[in-house]
Amino acid sequence: MAITSRDVARLAGVSQPTVSRALRDDPRVSEATKAKVRAAAEQLGYVPSEAGRALSSGRTRRIGLLITDIENQFYTHIIAPVHLQLERLGYQLMLHTETADNDTIVERLIANGLDGVILATTTVDSVVPLRLRDHGLPFVYFNRTTSFVDADATVVEPTAGFEAAVSRAVALGHTRIGAVLGPSNTSTAQSREVALRAALATNGLSLSPDDIRRGPFDTRTGDEATTSLLSQPSPPTLLFCANDVVAYGALNAASRRGVSVPGDLSIVGFDDLPAASWPIIELSTIAYDLTAMAGEAARLITRRIEQPDASVLHVEYETSFVERRTLSSAPLSD
Amino acid sequence: MAITSRDVARLAGVSQPTVSRALRDDPRVSEATKAKVRAAAEQLGYVPSEAGRALSSGRTRRIGLLITDIENQFYTHIIAPVHLQLERLGYQLMLHTETADNDTIVERLIANGLDGVILATTTVDSVVPLRLRDHGLPFVYFNRTTSFVDADATVVEPTAGFEAAVSRAVALGHTRIGAVLGPSNTSTAQSREVALRAALATNGLSLSPDDIRRGPFDTRTGDEATTSLLSQPSPPTLLFCANDVVAYGALNAASRRGVSVPGDLSIVGFDDLPAASWPIIELSTIAYDLTAMAGEAARLITRRIEQPDASVLHVEYETSFVERRTLSSAPLSD
Repeated sequence: MAITSRDVARLAGVSQPTVSRALRDDPRVSEATKAKVRAAAEQLGYVPSEAGRALSSGRTRRIGLLITDIENQFYTHIIAPVHLQLERLGYQLMLHTETADNDTIVERLIANGLDGVILATTTVDSVVPLRLRDHGLPFVYFNRTTSFVDADATVVEPTAGFEAAVSRAVALGHTRIGAVLGPSNTSTAQSREVALRAALATNGLSLSPDDIRRGPFDTRTGDEATTSLLSQPSPPTLLFCANDVVAYGALNAASRRGVSVPGDLSIVGFDDLPAASWPIIELSTIAYDLTAMAGEAARLITRRIEQPDASVLHVEYETSFVERRTLSSAPLSD
Repeated sequence: MAITSRDVARLAGVSQPTVSRALRDDPRVSEATKAKVRAAAEQLGYVPSEAGRALSSGRTRRIGLLITDIENQFYTHIIAPVHLQLERLGYQLMLHTETADNDTIVERLIANGLDGVILATTTVDSVVPLRLRDHGLPFVYFNRTTSFVDADATVVEPTAGFEAAVSRAVALGHTRIGAVLGPSNTSTAQSREVALRAALATNGLSLSPDDIRRGPFDTRTGDEATTSLLSQPSPPTLLFCANDVVAYGALNAASRRGVSVPGDLSIVGFDDLPAASWPIIELSTIAYDLTAMAGEAARLITRRIEQPDASVLHVEYETSFVERRTLSSAPLSD
């Protein structure tokens, strides 16, 4: 059985509330009693429970990171930097995984006594930000945002990356460009689509509806979309993918069909995850400082908790284009 | 500000303890009062805090999954199946990430009011199992175990997989076989090394000390070890890697040096992670049912919580060899 404050009280010869008061250094308890209680607690190996401490102080120094899309590889890369930054700031990370986006999530977040939450997979139609605001639980957006509830956020600004990538693609002779876009109900898929279309327009190009596919941010989307796009009589020579994970799927589809990358098909991702630079992958992609952005989300949530009235901050991360093996000259047309 | 039970008490015109009792359906509260309290709680959007509930019931239905090795990609694949199985059993997953293995971890696990813990990255010299046992907090081992504290565990039995892989390698003409082994202080690296050496011995082969490298379970280990092994005048023709992530690093090293896989070098992994079967990777590897094993760890910890005196279970998962592109005939010697 776990040691409780009752056991400590018995050994120290004091009441149970005195144990709690002594261990949180309450001035109403004499120094002699505190010493006695501490000795008893140490002897028994007693650790005060967070539940009891939270009820007395109102603070737990626990931050939730909410991920509803737990199969998505992208999010695994933000756990370590968020953890490390929170640890530096004296807070603890609790990863909350959920399979659906609904009111139950909010009840759990609140019931778990968190000081604040980092929302990492918000869809634009999510009820979570609204409910958290109504309950007064501080939160920040990581990467994805919603327009109807304003809050601190770290976001990617994709314009510069797409401008550089499209301009390089045009220089390499690509004119027939396709896209595997992310889900319409995410701000990230929306902003990347806008930036891609704008960069194409600047170069006198556009996305033909035949050359667009759309789906969740996973390898299966990239695989199925690319298979479908490549089955057209005259397919695009370059695909912009919603993110790197989708691009890995596109590479798999090309490999399975014997389509040479980049000889017959060039592929560009988004995120520059660690595997994108692996010699066996060498994916051209749009990059930004994901680690810094994850750490900044940690900084923003602790700032919001400690300064509830601070002005709302949107921290933008600039993008650049990283050219690797999967982009080359457009094949000569037949 | 968050709504508290005090606000509900004021609106319902009852005392604060009555609110708590009414909301947990305590028989000492009349049905009329319960209805009044529920109506007030609903009107205010009040959610009872877990801290308060935990103090009254002693149970939180929260299970911690402890991962001290948060950069290791392997663990990201177990989060979803553990989460789903716990949800089915009516428990909630809290991922605890830590960067070091020491007493602080144990204090945090206990302080966070968990009902139980799944240990996923235990080293054989870890103090965590000992401390959890002393504090009476139920735990199970996932994958890695220690010999000095017995507890429920789900483990991989690597023998059959290595026997099949080595016997196939020998049939393909490999006699000079190297290994990139995992850290000596993990039970998984130990059991795989024993199984590999036994399978080689059965076939009249052994690992030459020159052909062994060792390091953490990450791509960097595979990359550096393979670079070092390939720089020998006459390198091994086949490398067994500690796991798939290490094998990806081996593939990268071979690719960077222009060494053909499998023409000049065959590579075998362990785990059969999703990417191992990607057309752009096609890694030969030793497989087992990782998803079932993760779900079983969830089942074991809830069983231990609900039946503290049940007999200790070690659930073993059998392995098999999955042959893919990265294994082929040994090159003819010069």
